[in-house]
Amino acid sequence: MYYTIETQDKETNARAGILHTERGDIHTPIFMPVGTLGTVKGIHFKELREDVNAEIILGNTYHLYLRPGLEVLEEAGGVHKFNGWDRPMLTDSGGFQVFSLAENRKLTEEGATFRSHIDGSKHLFTPENVMDIQRIIGADIMMAFDECPPGDALYDYAKKSLDLTERWLDRCVKRFDETQPKYGYEQQLFPIVQGCTYKDLRIRSAENIAKLDRAGNAIGGLAVGEPAEVMYEMISVVNEILPKSKPRYLMGVGTPENILEAIALGVDMFDCVMPTRNGRNGMIFTSEGSINIKNKKWEKDFSPLDPDGTSFVDSAYSKAYVRHLIKANEMLGAQICSQHNIAFYLWLVREARTHINNGNFNLWKNEMVKKLGVRL
Amino acid sequence: MYYTIETQDKETNARAGILHTERGDIHTPIFMPVGTLGTVKGIHFKELREDVNAEIILGNTYHLYLRPGLEVLEEAGGVHKFNGWDRPMLTDSGGFQVFSLAENRKLTEEGATFRSHIDGSKHLFTPENVMDIQRIIGADIMMAFDECPPGDALYDYAKKSLDLTERWLDRCVKRFDETQPKYGYEQQLFPIVQGCTYKDLRIRSAENIAKLDRAGNAIGGLAVGEPAEVMYEMISVVNEILPKSKPRYLMGVGTPENILEAIALGVDMFDCVMPTRNGRNGMIFTSEGSINIKNKKWEKDFSPLDPDGTSFVDSAYSKAYVRHLIKANEMLGAQICSQHNIAFYLWLVREARTHINNGNFNLWKNEMVKKLGVRL
Repeated sequence: MYYTIETQDKETNARAGILHTERGDIHTPIFMPVGTLGTVKGIHFKELREDVNAEIILGNTYHLYLRPGLEVLEEAGGVHKFNGWDRPMLTDSGGFQVFSLAENRKLTEEGATFRSHIDGSKHLFTPENVMDIQRIIGADIMMAFDECPPGDALYDYAKKSLDLTERWLDRCVKRFDETQPKYGYEQQLFPIVQGCTYKDLRIRSAENIAKLDRAGNAIGGLAVGEPAEVMYEMISVVNEILPKSKPRYLMGVGTPENILEAIALGVDMFDCVMPTRNGRNGMIFTSEGSINIKNKKWEKDFSPLDPDGTSFVDSAYSKAYVRHLIKANEMLGAQICSQHNIAFYLWLVREARTHINNGNFNLWKNEMVKKLGVRL
Repeated sequence: MYYTIETQDKETNARAGILHTERGDIHTPIFMPVGTLGTVKGIHFKELREDVNAEIILGNTYHLYLRPGLEVLEEAGGVHKFNGWDRPMLTDSGGFQVFSLAENRKLTEEGATFRSHIDGSKHLFTPENVMDIQRIIGADIMMAFDECPPGDALYDYAKKSLDLTERWLDRCVKRFDETQPKYGYEQQLFPIVQGCTYKDLRIRSAENIAKLDRAGNAIGGLAVGEPAEVMYEMISVVNEILPKSKPRYLMGVGTPENILEAIALGVDMFDCVMPTRNGRNGMIFTSEGSINIKNKKWEKDFSPLDPDGTSFVDSAYSKAYVRHLIKANEMLGAQICSQHNIAFYLWLVREARTHINNGNFNLWKNEMVKKLGVRL
């Protein structure tokens, strides 16, 4: 796995690049649809490949570890053989879910014990076994196991949390480097910069991670309640330090505007549940602004869902029909809006890439951000 | 709309035919996927057309009347323009839902008042306005409004119910013949034979309906709890009387075995929620028998969902993966099983048709019925 930069934008820190993997090239900037349980909710893989043109998807270690479980995934020969997705896949480390979803969690130097949100069963995640778990899942890109402090953590907590996360990172790297992929294809480990909204902690974390010289680096713990300006400042500080020659992945972010601004700051990879989660509730993103399809104003609007959309759903269905489906809680409504939104996010990063290559990214970005904020 | 018979089977009453409509030919015997609210749950119309090859779908008047409502459907220019389905569509009359789903229903000579199961609002269905409603929905085939007595109705109730249904049928026919399609394409009305499990009532009903000489005829009020043998007997009695030159539609039936037996008795059209409803719960039908995908035995079965299946889902996904999806309540699981089952039902009636044309239907049918009963 290696990264090549095609174009470095002159006005911003944006860049167009390619992350070369054994499962194919990933053209950055890229958005990774979230496939929590090994499925992007409501969308067939065929559609992800042919209609949406997703180049990489994300899975959640916490969820896959609980269901279907490691025994099934290992016997299948890894997640790709299990679900049939043959392009790259990245798994998070489970840290975020342990700290947001699991019950009775207890943190020690060793790791985190928690109870499953499904059946209450007790489990332990450590930096070492989370590496082993991701080896078994068979993700192409594995993430370090870190503590995820709350967005409003005070400085002392944030510092102690980073201390622990850095000790855990050393253990992750050690275990990762001592072990081999189980299924014959390459896996890489991305470390995660933490430090809440404290500049000095972010700098320290980024400096330590830069030294590790891994195939890519991630920025975590943002978009957890802080103002967008603070998030952008943290990204900016961190990206001064993280090596330019490696892809930078901003975890769990965000709105279309967030993504464009972060691209301008030098971020290359994104994931977010927003397109699918909001889609299931009837919120759709378009190049002219966002639509709440439940609103009465769409009741008799028989025009295509999104005349500028790239997915087949955009011309196959009308706004009025999709509104009816969402109002009546019909599965097809969630399917249509999810597929539209994922296709829109992928279109957005492809457009960003084109404009970086054409040398007019900043102008385009500023115009787009204005439009994206409109509520239609 | 007219019906031509291609082959009359020599050993049974099965026949292969074509119902010619302005929206294309329907090759009988045919299965009609149920699209309650103008959507076959979980399946894009593109898939219904290209993958499943559905030739006609069904909608429910009761549901479409409540949501999206007549104002929206009329302004759209009918259900086909509303949902984009360009092949034929049949709507039931709402009778069944009024008697099974609505609240506070009250039956009078005029019609049935009921409260919506969604918001409790009060409504009145009469033979006349149900014709008007189906004109507005724009179904290619409209059904008569009838009373649906419970499956275990005693003779006196069944007789009184049929009396009312026959008076209502006269009013349906009168209103239908006095009115015109709203959107410029042909609509036809199918009357429905009722009479519970009482032979004399079924005969009387069928004789009256035969005289009406409509474009097609339906058999209702079966598969509501009576033994399969009783159902087959009623079909047999009725089909002696209903004109051979018109398609016969058995409403709401049934299992794959039921469908094959009814084809042998001279039925041409079917609808049933079973493939989609059972699919959502992880039950899948195959040519070797049925599978409850939730069973532990499929947990590590990485073979294709159905090696003999005709849908893309059958080879794209493994049993173990689909089991995982259904167990974890993932939408994609319901989508896959629904699409598989609908494709299987369509395959089954196409195969029946081929065997009727080849002159070996009965032999094939008897072998298939044995296999279909197996629980894998």
